[in-house]
Amino acid sequence: MSQNIGHRLFAGSIIKTDALERTPVEDEKFIGERFSLELTRGQEVSFEKVVVLQTDRDPEQMLEIAWAHGMAALKAASKVSYREAFDQNVACWQKFWDRSDILVDGDPDTQQGIRFCIFQMQQTYRGLVRGSNIGAKGLTGEVYNGNAFWDTETYCLPFYLFSNPSAAKALLDYRFMTLPQALERAAQLNCRGACFPVATIDGTESCTLWQHASLQFQSSTGIAYAIQHYVNITGDVEFLFKEGIELLVQISRFLSSRGQWSQSTGKFGFYGVMGPDEFHMMVNNNCYTNYLAKRTFEYTLAALSEIRQVDPVKSASLLSRLECTATELENWGQQAEQMYIPYDAATGLYEQHDGFFNLPHLDVDTLPMKDFPLYNHWAYDRIYRYDMIKQPDVLMFMFLYDQSFTAADKLANYNYYEPRCIHESSLSPSVHSILASELGKYDEAFDFFRFATRIDLDNYNRNSGEGIHTTSIAAAWMNIVYGFGGMRSDGKVLTFNPSIPEHWKGYSFQVTYRGALLRLEVNQTTARIHTVEGEPVTICFGGAEREIGPEWVATEIRCRAPVAAVEPAGGKHAA
Amino acid sequence: MSQNIGHRLFAGSIIKTDALERTPVEDEKFIGERFSLELTRGQEVSFEKVVVLQTDRDPEQMLEIAWAHGMAALKAASKVSYREAFDQNVACWQKFWDRSDILVDGDPDTQQGIRFCIFQMQQTYRGLVRGSNIGAKGLTGEVYNGNAFWDTETYCLPFYLFSNPSAAKALLDYRFMTLPQALERAAQLNCRGACFPVATIDGTESCTLWQHASLQFQSSTGIAYAIQHYVNITGDVEFLFKEGIELLVQISRFLSSRGQWSQSTGKFGFYGVMGPDEFHMMVNNNCYTNYLAKRTFEYTLAALSEIRQVDPVKSASLLSRLECTATELENWGQQAEQMYIPYDAATGLYEQHDGFFNLPHLDVDTLPMKDFPLYNHWAYDRIYRYDMIKQPDVLMFMFLYDQSFTAADKLANYNYYEPRCIHESSLSPSVHSILASELGKYDEAFDFFRFATRIDLDNYNRNSGEGIHTTSIAAAWMNIVYGFGGMRSDGKVLTFNPSIPEHWKGYSFQVTYRGALLRLEVNQTTARIHTVEGEPVTICFGGAEREIGPEWVATEIRCRAPVAAVEPAGGKHAA
Repeated sequence: MSQNIGHRLFAGSIIKTDALERTPVEDEKFIGERFSLELTRGQEVSFEKVVVLQTDRDPEQMLEIAWAHGMAALKAASKVSYREAFDQNVACWQKFWDRSDILVDGDPDTQQGIRFCIFQMQQTYRGLVRGSNIGAKGLTGEVYNGNAFWDTETYCLPFYLFSNPSAAKALLDYRFMTLPQALERAAQLNCRGACFPVATIDGTESCTLWQHASLQFQSSTGIAYAIQHYVNITGDVEFLFKEGIELLVQISRFLSSRGQWSQSTGKFGFYGVMGPDEFHMMVNNNCYTNYLAKRTFEYTLAALSEIRQVDPVKSASLLSRLECTATELENWGQQAEQMYIPYDAATGLYEQHDGFFNLPHLDVDTLPMKDFPLYNHWAYDRIYRYDMIKQPDVLMFMFLYDQSFTAADKLANYNYYEPRCIHESSLSPSVHSILASELGKYDEAFDFFRFATRIDLDNYNRNSGEGIHTTSIAAAWMNIVYGFGGMRSDGKVLTFNPSIPEHWKGYSFQVTYRGALLRLEVNQTTARIHTVEGEPVTICFGGAEREIGPEWVATEIRCRAPVAAVEPAGGKHAA
Repeated sequence: MSQNIGHRLFAGSIIKTDALERTPVEDEKFIGERFSLELTRGQEVSFEKVVVLQTDRDPEQMLEIAWAHGMAALKAASKVSYREAFDQNVACWQKFWDRSDILVDGDPDTQQGIRFCIFQMQQTYRGLVRGSNIGAKGLTGEVYNGNAFWDTETYCLPFYLFSNPSAAKALLDYRFMTLPQALERAAQLNCRGACFPVATIDGTESCTLWQHASLQFQSSTGIAYAIQHYVNITGDVEFLFKEGIELLVQISRFLSSRGQWSQSTGKFGFYGVMGPDEFHMMVNNNCYTNYLAKRTFEYTLAALSEIRQVDPVKSASLLSRLECTATELENWGQQAEQMYIPYDAATGLYEQHDGFFNLPHLDVDTLPMKDFPLYNHWAYDRIYRYDMIKQPDVLMFMFLYDQSFTAADKLANYNYYEPRCIHESSLSPSVHSILASELGKYDEAFDFFRFATRIDLDNYNRNSGEGIHTTSIAAAWMNIVYGFGGMRSDGKVLTFNPSIPEHWKGYSFQVTYRGALLRLEVNQTTARIHTVEGEPVTICFGGAEREIGPEWVATEIRCRAPVAAVEPAGGKHAA
């Protein structure tokens, strides 16, 4: 990943002080000033340093103009005194914490950790600059060259969606703005529609490993998922009917042209792909890819149908502009219906891809510690030929579409895939923790959660110096809200089914939902919820749909029940 | 492939003439002399230019010494007059043609073509320089950077084996000399034993595409096959017992450590590999790889057993030196016995790899000409997800071990795989031609043969300027000898079952076999054979084993029989 995208970066500072002698200093890759003063007893000297870092994202921008923009910003900033800036900053953060803090009573390490995570998420992205996304290291390091990855929508977006929906919308706007690059990329892959990049800053594919860049489609399906997620939680159909539907149509079109029909089974599926588990390459019918594509087709068709009902004229003009024929829509319907989802009803297991169950077995617990990370210690091709997975793949789609699967199937797949997973991605433990919590495996849930909030504070992976683990930090937030809070956001209404770690006294968090701000408080016996702002909203709480308004509504929390007692969350089997 | 192997190349020339004024000329990458003379009527001027091209293959060699060697060679060469050199050259080639010519009566294009091929083979390699192999472009071009590929043993070696066995042995010696590099390469792949390179000059892997370099093992299995082939045809057990067995043990050891047991089928096989058909990558149980590995284990164990019988002391010392335990040999036996060879008895079809029969179908006849070559016109990943193959894979092992398969199975697999093959390798048509000829598909056999002998003379692929297609040229020889001559060399004795294209009056060729030189002459009704040199040898001719001596032995040739009438060549089914 060495592509230069040509953004202009302005970095300027003004130091305000009268008391010092100052000498400019220049060296290679260094520019500064040296200050000197003689101190006398009781003398007080103050500096004010005003710094502006500004990016001009247009690579065609003339340097002179980028410079002028930067200098203007610096001049404006220098008019604000230190005291004013400090007060603005405090007020701004106070407002943020009032809405977005998570309180954990009885576990100071976790309390500090989760606040560190929330702080980093807010500092990294607020959606204020159009056309920006979230780098894998945020703004804290140069590893991954500032690229945003496919997992922005699945890991980072939920935090913003539930604390600052306009930032979530900005992430989707970013994808809409880079639609031309995704259309171009699909054409490079001899496909139609839009294929979104695995890694990117400016919308073009920046991943230089063809086997990832050409075979992984979870960016595209993740964007479709995120549109559904965003619209479901915010109710923003205006976005759906304009940018959203265009993204959905172009993503469906890509998936339809990339998928193929098997000559023997008569089923539709994806051949020569790689799923989120990156330890199997060029596989056929990767279950994650197939399942996400099926749901993408279905949601796209549902959204088109909704638009047609609401505004037939707009619908016709949209389809005409996108050159979307009745035959094409019919194809998507058939492809969704005939999508091959390898499911064994006897065991409840989804096969991760064709032939996965026949692969040679490796007991991952027998691998010596010195072999990790495997990418650095194993011959490259050796990684790809066992039933060992790097991060959840089947469990990932069962989490994303949680309410479409029975608890029994989630349990079967958790029990099968978790022992085969080496969690060599910092994203992996959080999904396992959330599912373990749902399945009543409370100890396992806390074990997987234990390191999530403090990965960079305590430098667990010994690489925090390279920058923070942004998606992992975002997943830590999901761990509390989805994991212990038992929130599910993929159904018709928002659902909470809270539990609590044994040694916590209590915890609380707030989420925005369809214009309301909901506050959830949980202690060792009871969970209660009410609206802090906005009109009453209907949610599923304690197993039943209820309208939640300003008055607290309480329910008993899940106990440490044996797994068999866990009720299916949604019911209907999806495959 | 941009590795520099550091060979020293000396190129020197002396021009002998007294009649001219000469001026040295030097320019960038150019050194020469300019000559001038004034011609008067009737004046005759002669030049003699003596050229020496010499490679010092030791990259550690001092330049001064390489220079001295080159100058000495130039000095020695300059002592030979033009007339002497010319006469030596004529005599040398005459001797060669007397043994190795192929005569084709009634088809001047083919006659010229096959002689061009034979000339190129002889000019390219005679096995005189230890540690040399055959570049993909011979000595005629820089494409492929002079690398020899995995196919030397399967495509080029037969020509030398049957015309100049010492050159064939030199090719095997080359592999023995580069065994240390192959041991090192296996270790890089986290395996034991020896993994031979896909492309190389000095024995190290020079292919820079990991998906070929790490996933294709037909170099290693091809060398094992070639040892068996060489020993079978020459009877050179001395080589087998010394270099051959060491190569076999280290190749078997590699295969044993690279293969894996399936957890569900309990069968042994190769996971995450690529077969000779390079249009499917990272597949499991590639039938070619599995079958060749099975036969490699079997031959290695048979050879070890033979050595043990002949010389138990030598055998024990060999096993001890190679650290080869009884358990290891037992493992190879089990792995050979339990090797997964996906064969459907109902159809007689071998499945090229797990899932091949379920792949999306592509009618290759519908591909527009402008798409070829696909590597240049298709998105890279698009090539890998159809039931389309680049070159024979199942048919290739059925050709190599021809006598282990029934004619019915060969026919079934030919009928299935040929329509799926786009022959995007110049190696592909020859194997199809040979099998078509065996199966009585005479028109198809000649169609595939038509271009083989003249690929570079007529510049069919519009790239002969880049150098000759060495392996294709070698395959042209196989086309006549194995194809029309019906020779098979993988059985207990050499077999001939000749046919003849309809418009040829006749053809003849000579092959060496266990010390004898056999001459075969074929016309439209009869084939006859006798020894030109050496003791009588037993071969299978016209369907029966016979001793062939200096007297002609004749048989009727195969007519243009319907396919159903073709008799199985060997009988026993191998899988």
